[in-house]
Amino acid sequence: MPRIFQRAKKPGLSPGTLIHVGERKVDKPRISFIDYDETQFQEKGVKTIEECFPFKDTPTVTWINITGIHEVDIIEKLGKHFDLHPLILEDIVNTEQRPKMEDFGNYIFIVLKMLYFNEKENEINSEQVSLVLGSNFVISFQESIGDVFEPVRERIRKGKGRIRKTGSDYLAYALVDTIVDNYFIILEKFGERIEEAQEELVKMPTPETLQAIHKLKREMIFLRKSVWPLREVVSGLDRAETPLIHEATGIFLRDVYDHTIQVIDTIENSRDMLSGMLDIYLSSISNRMNEVMKVLTIFAAIFIPLTFIAGVYGMNFAFMPELAWRWGYPVVLTVMVLVAVVLLFYFRRKKWL
Amino acid sequence: MPRIFQRAKKPGLSPGTLIHVGERKVDKPRISFIDYDETQFQEKGVKTIEECFPFKDTPTVTWINITGIHEVDIIEKLGKHFDLHPLILEDIVNTEQRPKMEDFGNYIFIVLKMLYFNEKENEINSEQVSLVLGSNFVISFQESIGDVFEPVRERIRKGKGRIRKTGSDYLAYALVDTIVDNYFIILEKFGERIEEAQEELVKMPTPETLQAIHKLKREMIFLRKSVWPLREVVSGLDRAETPLIHEATGIFLRDVYDHTIQVIDTIENSRDMLSGMLDIYLSSISNRMNEVMKVLTIFAAIFIPLTFIAGVYGMNFAFMPELAWRWGYPVVLTVMVLVAVVLLFYFRRKKWL
Amino acid sequence: MPRIFQRAKKPGLSPGTLIHVGERKVDKPRISFIDYDETQFQEKGVKTIEECFPFKDTPTVTWINITGIHEVDIIEKLGKHFDLHPLILEDIVNTEQRPKMEDFGNYIFIVLKMLYFNEKENEINSEQVSLVLGSNFVISFQESIGDVFEPVRERIRKGKGRIRKTGSDYLAYALVDTIVDNYFIILEKFGERIEEAQEELVKMPTPETLQAIHKLKREMIFLRKSVWPLREVVSGLDRAETPLIHEATGIFLRDVYDHTIQVIDTIENSRDMLSGMLDIYLSSISNRMNEVMKVLTIFAAIFIPLTFIAGVYGMNFAFMPELAWRWGYPVVLTVMVLVAVVLLFYFRRKKWL
Amino acid sequence: MPRIFQRAKKPGLSPGTLIHVGERKVDKPRISFIDYDETQFQEKGVKTIEECFPFKDTPTVTWINITGIHEVDIIEKLGKHFDLHPLILEDIVNTEQRPKMEDFGNYIFIVLKMLYFNEKENEINSEQVSLVLGSNFVISFQESIGDVFEPVRERIRKGKGRIRKTGSDYLAYALVDTIVDNYFIILEKFGERIEEAQEELVKMPTPETLQAIHKLKREMIFLRKSVWPLREVVSGLDRAETPLIHEATGIFLRDVYDHTIQVIDTIENSRDMLSGMLDIYLSSISNRMNEVMKVLTIFAAIFIPLTFIAGVYGMNFAFMPELAWRWGYPVVLTVMVLVAVVLLFYFRRKKWL
Amino acid sequence: MPRIFQRAKKPGLSPGTLIHVGERKVDKPRISFIDYDETQFQEKGVKTIEECFPFKDTPTVTWINITGIHEVDIIEKLGKHFDLHPLILEDIVNTEQRPKMEDFGNYIFIVLKMLYFNEKENEINSEQVSLVLGSNFVISFQESIGDVFEPVRERIRKGKGRIRKTGSDYLAYALVDTIVDNYFIILEKFGERIEEAQEELVKMPTPETLQAIHKLKREMIFLRKSVWPLREVVSGLDRAETPLIHEATGIFLRDVYDHTIQVIDTIENSRDMLSGMLDIYLSSISNRMNEVMKVLTIFAAIFIPLTFIAGVYGMNFAFMPELAWRWGYPVVLTVMVLVAVVLLFYFRRKKWL
Repeated sequence: MPRIFQRAKKPGLSPGTLIHVGERKVDKPRISFIDYDETQFQEKGVKTIEECFPFKDTPTVTWINITGIHEVDIIEKLGKHFDLHPLILEDIVNTEQRPKMEDFGNYIFIVLKMLYFNEKENEINSEQVSLVLGSNFVISFQESIGDVFEPVRERIRKGKGRIRKTGSDYLAYALVDTIVDNYFIILEKFGERIEEAQEELVKMPTPETLQAIHKLKREMIFLRKSVWPLREVVSGLDRAETPLIHEATGIFLRDVYDHTIQVIDTIENSRDMLSGMLDIYLSSISNRMNEVMKVLTIFAAIFIPLTFIAGVYGMNFAFMPELAWRWGYPVVLTVMVLVAVVLLFYFRRKKWL
Repeated sequence: MPRIFQRAKKPGLSPGTLIHVGERKVDKPRISFIDYDETQFQEKGVKTIEECFPFKDTPTVTWINITGIHEVDIIEKLGKHFDLHPLILEDIVNTEQRPKMEDFGNYIFIVLKMLYFNEKENEINSEQVSLVLGSNFVISFQESIGDVFEPVRERIRKGKGRIRKTGSDYLAYALVDTIVDNYFIILEKFGERIEEAQEELVKMPTPETLQAIHKLKREMIFLRKSVWPLREVVSGLDRAETPLIHEATGIFLRDVYDHTIQVIDTIENSRDMLSGMLDIYLSSISNRMNEVMKVLTIFAAIFIPLTFIAGVYGMNFAFMPELAWRWGYPVVLTVMVLVAVVLLFYFRRKKWL
Repeated sequence: MPRIFQRAKKPGLSPGTLIHVGERKVDKPRISFIDYDETQFQEKGVKTIEECFPFKDTPTVTWINITGIHEVDIIEKLGKHFDLHPLILEDIVNTEQRPKMEDFGNYIFIVLKMLYFNEKENEINSEQVSLVLGSNFVISFQESIGDVFEPVRERIRKGKGRIRKTGSDYLAYALVDTIVDNYFIILEKFGERIEEAQEELVKMPTPETLQAIHKLKREMIFLRKSVWPLREVVSGLDRAETPLIHEATGIFLRDVYDHTIQVIDTIENSRDMLSGMLDIYLSSISNRMNEVMKVLTIFAAIFIPLTFIAGVYGMNFAFMPELAWRWGYPVVLTVMVLVAVVLLFYFRRKKWL
Repeated sequence: MPRIFQRAKKPGLSPGTLIHVGERKVDKPRISFIDYDETQFQEKGVKTIEECFPFKDTPTVTWINITGIHEVDIIEKLGKHFDLHPLILEDIVNTEQRPKMEDFGNYIFIVLKMLYFNEKENEINSEQVSLVLGSNFVISFQESIGDVFEPVRERIRKGKGRIRKTGSDYLAYALVDTIVDNYFIILEKFGERIEEAQEELVKMPTPETLQAIHKLKREMIFLRKSVWPLREVVSGLDRAETPLIHEATGIFLRDVYDHTIQVIDTIENSRDMLSGMLDIYLSSISNRMNEVMKVLTIFAAIFIPLTFIAGVYGMNFAFMPELAWRWGYPVVLTVMVLVAVVLLFYFRRKKWL
Repeated sequence: MPRIFQRAKKPGLSPGTLIHVGERKVDKPRISFIDYDETQFQEKGVKTIEECFPFKDTPTVTWINITGIHEVDIIEKLGKHFDLHPLILEDIVNTEQRPKMEDFGNYIFIVLKMLYFNEKENEINSEQVSLVLGSNFVISFQESIGDVFEPVRERIRKGKGRIRKTGSDYLAYALVDTIVDNYFIILEKFGERIEEAQEELVKMPTPETLQAIHKLKREMIFLRKSVWPLREVVSGLDRAETPLIHEATGIFLRDVYDHTIQVIDTIENSRDMLSGMLDIYLSSISNRMNEVMKVLTIFAAIFIPLTFIAGVYGMNFAFMPELAWRWGYPVVLTVMVLVAVVLLFYFRRKKWL
C-alpha cells in the first residue's frame, strides 16, 4: 500500500543535521556526470564526488546526477563545495518532503515526487527527486536507479532540440517536464484500473470490488498528496524573479504548468468517479438483499398457508365431517392449488416475479 | 462512454515534437480558406496549405480552417510560415489539451472543446478546436467535419452584422461564441435526459435507472472538465493587454463570459440534481424492501400461530379430551378465525395494511 | 416544477439578433410612463413607445415600464432611440439571463429575477426584470403584469420619502430594493413549507414526504441560481465608478446588499436543513424495517419451536410411550407455555418488546 | 425551535420606514443612562428619552441603554437628536438583521446577536443588540431585560480596569467583548448536550436520539448564522480608518477577534461531530437489524428441518416400515438432536452465536 | 477523550484579569533559567521569578522557562517587569487559546499547542505552550513537566549548531521547530492506529471498530483544531516586519512552515481515510446482513415446501388412495429429495451457495 502517513524524525535536532529518512533503495550511490555547451559534450561515470568539483566554475552547463541518497557524507561534501544551505541538504536526504521550490538567490532548490507503477503489487509507488539549479549547473538526486532521465541524456548527447543551445535552467525544466510527463502514464494506468473496477461493479460486485475501490481511493489520496503541491512549484519557478531562469524558458514552464493542472484535474475527477462507484456498490448490495428477501417471501407466503390447510385436516378430532367425504381430499388439493395460483398472481402483479 | 482519463504521450520527448495524440476522425485533412474585408470577400477550398501563405501579410482578414490534424507536416509547414511556437503546434495535434488561452505577443493561441451529442450512443462527445488569432488572420483547427462554423461563414458571405466591418479579433470572438452557444444545446439535451431519468425514478426505479444516473454523472464530470477552464480562457481574452484585441470587442467577450458562467452554473446545478436523484434511488430500494418485509411478516405472523394450533390437535395422545367433544372441531376453527382477525386488526393499526 | 436547465437559442447567430426566448406571458406589451422631479409629476399609459421619446432629454426623471417583451420591434425602437447596445437588447428579450450588471458608460444595464409563489402549483416561479439606468431615466422591462412596483409608483405619486427629491439612480435602487424585499416573502413561504415537511417527517414519513423534500431541494437550487449572482450585481452597483450613481445612494445600495446576503444565508441554511431531513427520512425507513423484522422474528421464534413439539407428538410411531401416558397431553401443553414464556422473557430483555 | 427562516416585512416600503419586526419581549421600553470620565460618574434611570439629550455634547462618555425596541417613536426621537441615518433606525427595530458594522463617519453602527440558553425549552435563543458608537457616546439597544451588561456597569461604577480612563470606543469594545464572552457559555452548554447525545448514542440509541441530534444540528445552523458574520464585524472595527476608534483599542479588538475565531472554530467542529454522530446512529440501526435477523435465522434454520422430520413421520401411509420399529421413535429423536447440534455448531463457526 | 468544546470563563470581566482556565497539571510552578551568548553560558534553577529579572537588560540571550501556570502572581510579576500587555498575561493562563502570534512592537507573543500521546488512554492530549520573544530574551510557559525542550537545552549547553551564535529569535525558532517536529511523532502514532483500525475493518469489523473509527475522527478534529492555526502563526513570524526577527532566521521559519503544511496535509488525508473507512464499515454490515438473509432464505425455501408435502400426507381424510399404495411412502420421499435438489441447484445458479 502506498504510505499516506509520514515517518517522523527525532524532534529537537539541530536544523541541518543530515539523517537519511526513508528506505535504502540502492546499495551504493552512483554519480553520473554530464558537461556540455552548444559545441562540446562530455559524459562520464565518476567514482568520488570530488571529481565533479572542478566543473563548478566552468561556463559550460554541468549536470551531476546522484542516485542513492543514504550516504550522507557525499551530500555533505557536495553541499560544502557548492555552498548549499544545510536545510537543503537535510531535505535532500529526508524522503518525506512535500514537493516544493525555494529560491536561495544564487541557486534554486526543487523537490519533486517521481511516480512509478509497481506491477507486482499492482499499485503506485513514489520516490523523491531533488534538483539544485545554479547559474551553470544542475544537481539532481534520485532514490533509486531508473531510466526516466535517459531521454533527456539522449537529447543532450545527440544535440536534439534546443537543449544544447540553452542554459542550466532549460535542463532543469527538461527534467521537471520529464517527471510530469511520466505522471500521465501513471494516470493512464490508474484510469484503466478504475475502468476495470467499474466494469466489475456493473457485472458482479463482490466485497473484493469494494476493497479494490478503497485501494484506488487510497492511491488517489496518495497521488493528490504528491501532485497538488507541484502546481505551486511550477508556477513559482515561472514567477520567480531570478536571473537563474531566462525569460525564454518561461513559456516552457507555463507548458509544464498546464500539464500539472491537467494531472490535478484528472485526479480530482477520479475522486468523483470513485465516490460514485461506492454509491453504486452500496446500492447493489441493497438490491441483492431485495432479491433475496423476495425469494424468501414468495416461498414462505405461498407454502405457509398451504401447510396450514394440510395441518387442519391432520387434526384428530372425532367429529370432522370433511374427513369422511368422498371428495374431501381432491377438493382440499384443489383449494391448495387455487390459493397458490392466487398468490403467484398477486406477486406477479407486484412485479416480484 | 466519454473518456475521463487522459491518454499519455511518451515522456521525455523534446518539447515541440509533433505527435498526434487522439483518434483519427477524418481521412484526409481539409483546408478551407476565406479572405475578406468590408468591401471584398473571397472563399475557396485549397489543396495544399502553401496556397494560403501569400495572404498572411495582406491587410484583409484571412481565416484558414483546417479539419483533421493527424497530418503533422501540414501543421508544421503552417507553423513555420506563420512563425508559431513549437509548443503551440504540439498542443494543436495533441487532442488531450485542457481549454486554455496563451498570449504570445504577436498572436494569441486558444484551445477549446467542441461538444456534440452522439444520438447513437446517447452520450456527449467532444472534439478539440484550436484557434490562432493574429493581427489580420485567424487559423482554426478542428478534428472532424462539422457544420458548426457554417453560420459564421454565412454571416461573412452575406456581410450580415458587424463581422465584415471588424478585424480578426471579432472573427475569433464569433467562433468562440458559436462554440459556447452550442453548449446550450448540449445542456438542453442533457437536462432532458436528467428529467427523463427523474421521471423513471419517481415511477418505477430499476437498477437500470441507477446505471443511467451514473452515466449522467460521468458525463457531468466530463462536461465540467471541458467547460470549467473556459471561464479563465474567455476572461483572459477580455483582460489581455494586447493590441490584437480591440476595445470594442471587449463587450462581446464579456457577453461570451456571461454565457460561460451560465453554462457552468447549469452544470453545477445538474450535479446537485444528480446527487439528489441518487438519494431518492437508494431510499426507494429501502422502501421496497420494507414492502417485501411487511408482506412476509403478515403472512408468517398470521399463519404460523394457526398452523401451531392445528399441530396441537394433530398430536396422537391417547387422552386428549377435546378431540372427542362434539363441537371441538368447529370451536377450534372459530378460534383460528378469531386469531387471524385479531392479527389483521393489529397490522392494520400498525398501518402495515 | 421550476426549470433548472436552460433553453438554448440557435447557435452561430450574429450577436445582437433579437429573438424572444421564453414563454409569452402577456398578450400585448403594455407601456406605462412616469415623469417627475421634486416639484412636478406626470403619469400616463402610452400606446406606442414613440410617445415616450421626447422625455429622454428633459432634466426630469423619466420612468418607462414595459410589460411583455415578446414584441421585439418595440424593444428595437427603444434601443435605437436611447442608443442601447444591441447585446443589451438581446439580453432583454432572452429570459434565460443570469442576474448581472454592466456599466456602459452613459447607462447601466441590470438584469434581475423576480420571484413569486405560485399557489396553484405550490411552487416558486420566476420572471426576468431588466433595468436600464440613464442619467435622467430608468427603463424597466417585466415579463408579466404584476403589481410589485406599485408601492414605488405610489411613493412617487404621493411624494413620500426621498424619492421625488433624488435622481434616477435612487429610482433604480428603489426598484431593486422592492424586488429583494419580495424575496423575503418567498423565503418565508419556503421556510413554512420546509417546516411542514419537517413536521410530517417526525410524525409519519411516507414516500410522498421524500418527494416533497426533493421538490423543495429542487426549488432551493432554483432559488440559489436566481439569487446568488445578485450579490455581485448589487456590490457592483455600489462600487461602480460612474457619475450615474450619486454618493448618497451608496448607503442605500449597501442596505440592499445586506438584504441580499441575508437572503443567500437563508438559502444556504435551507440547504443544510433539507439534507438533514433526508438523513432523517432514510433512518426512519430503516427504523420501520427494524420494527417489521422484530415482529416477524418474535412470531416466528415463538411459534416455530412450539409447532415442532406438536409435530413430534403427531408422529405415528407404534412405540411412543408418552402418547399413552395419562398426563402426556397436559404436560406437553405446559411445556409449550413454558417455552413461550421463556422466549417472551428473552425478547423483553433484548428490549424488542 | 430556534427560527432559521426570516420573517418578511412588507416589500416596497420607503427605506427608513420604522416598523418593528420581531416579538415584543418587554412591556415598556426602559432607558438607563450612565455618564462618566476618569474623575466623575453619574448613573440614573430616565423616563423620557429627552432627558438624555443634553449629554450628547459634553466631553464625558455617555452610555444610553434602551431595553425594548417596539416603541418606534423613542427610536425616532433619539435618531433625530443624534442625527442617525434613517436606515440605521430601520435596522434597529427590525430584529431580523444579520450581524454587521457600518461606518457613517461621525458614528459607527454595530448589530450583534446576543445568545442565551433557554433552560425550559432546552434550546438556544437569540436577541438582537444594536450599538451606536459616537465620539463621546455609546447607545445600545436590547430586546429584553437581561443582566449581561451588568458587569460592565459594575466596572464603570467601581472604576475597575481601564474603562474609566478611556473613551467611548473602549466602552463599545467592552460591550462587544461581553457579548462574545457570553457565547463561550452557550457553547459550553451546547458541547455538553452534544456529549450527552453521544453517550446515549453509544449506550442505547433510540429514534429520540436522532431527534436530539437533528435538533442540535438545527441549533448549530442557527448559531453559525448568528456568529459567522461577527468575524467581519470585529475585523471591520479593527481595520476601520476612523478617528472614533483609538489605536490603543486595536489590541483589544484583536483579542475579541481571536475569541470570535475560537467560537467559529468550535461551531465548525460541532458540525463535524454531529455529522459523525448521524453516521453512528445509522450504522447502529443496521447493526441491530443484523442482530434481529440472526435470531430469526437461527430459530428458523434449526426448527424448520426438525419440524420437517416430524412431519415425515406424521404421514399416514399404510406402509412406513420405520413406524413399526421398536427403536424408531428414539432414533428419530436422536437424529433431531444431532441435526440441531450440527446447525448450532455451524452458526457458532459463523460467529452468529 | 480529547475535549473539543471550550471551557468558558466568566463573561464581562475586565480584560487582563488573570484567571487560570484549565487543569492544574503540576503542583508548584518550576522556573528554569538559561543565559548565553557565543562565548559564555549559564544555567540554573531559580526559586523566585525575581532572580531572573536582572538579566532582562544584559546583551546575552536569556531564556526563562516556566512550567505550571496556575500561580497567577508569578505571571503577573513577570509581566510587570518585562512590560507585557495584560491581555497577553490573560492568554498565558487561559489554556483554551487558539494558536496565534501577535507582534507587540518590542516583543512578539506566540501561543502553540504541544501534543503528546497518552499511552494509557490510547489518545492524543495537548498542552498549551506560550512564548514571548524579546530582543534578547525568550520566556516560555508550559503546563506540565516534559522533556520536549531538553534537546534544545542540550544544544545550547554543548554549543552545537548555530544556536549559541545567533540571537533570541533563533532560540524561539528552535522551540517552535521542536514542537512541530514533535507533531510528526504524534501523526506517525496516529497513522499506525488508523492502519490498525483499517486492518480490523478488512478482517472482521465489529461495532467496536466503528467506535474506534469514531474516536480517531474525533481526535482528527482535535488535531486539526490544534494545528491549522499554526500555519498562520509561522507564516506570520516569517512575514512580520519586525527588527526582532533577523533576516537569516527567515529561511529556518520557512522550513518550519513547510513542516506545518506537511502536518496539515497529513491530517486532511487522514480525514479522507477515515471517511472511507466508515463507508467500508457500513457496507460490511450490509454485506453480513445479506449473508444472514441468504442462509435464512435457503433453509426456509427448501424445508417449507417439504414440510408442506409431509403435511399433505399427514391429513386424515378417509379416502386418500396414495396412503394405501405400497410404494407411496418411498415415492413421496423421492419427490422430496428431488424438490430439495432442484432448489439447491436453483440457489447455486443464483450464486447464493
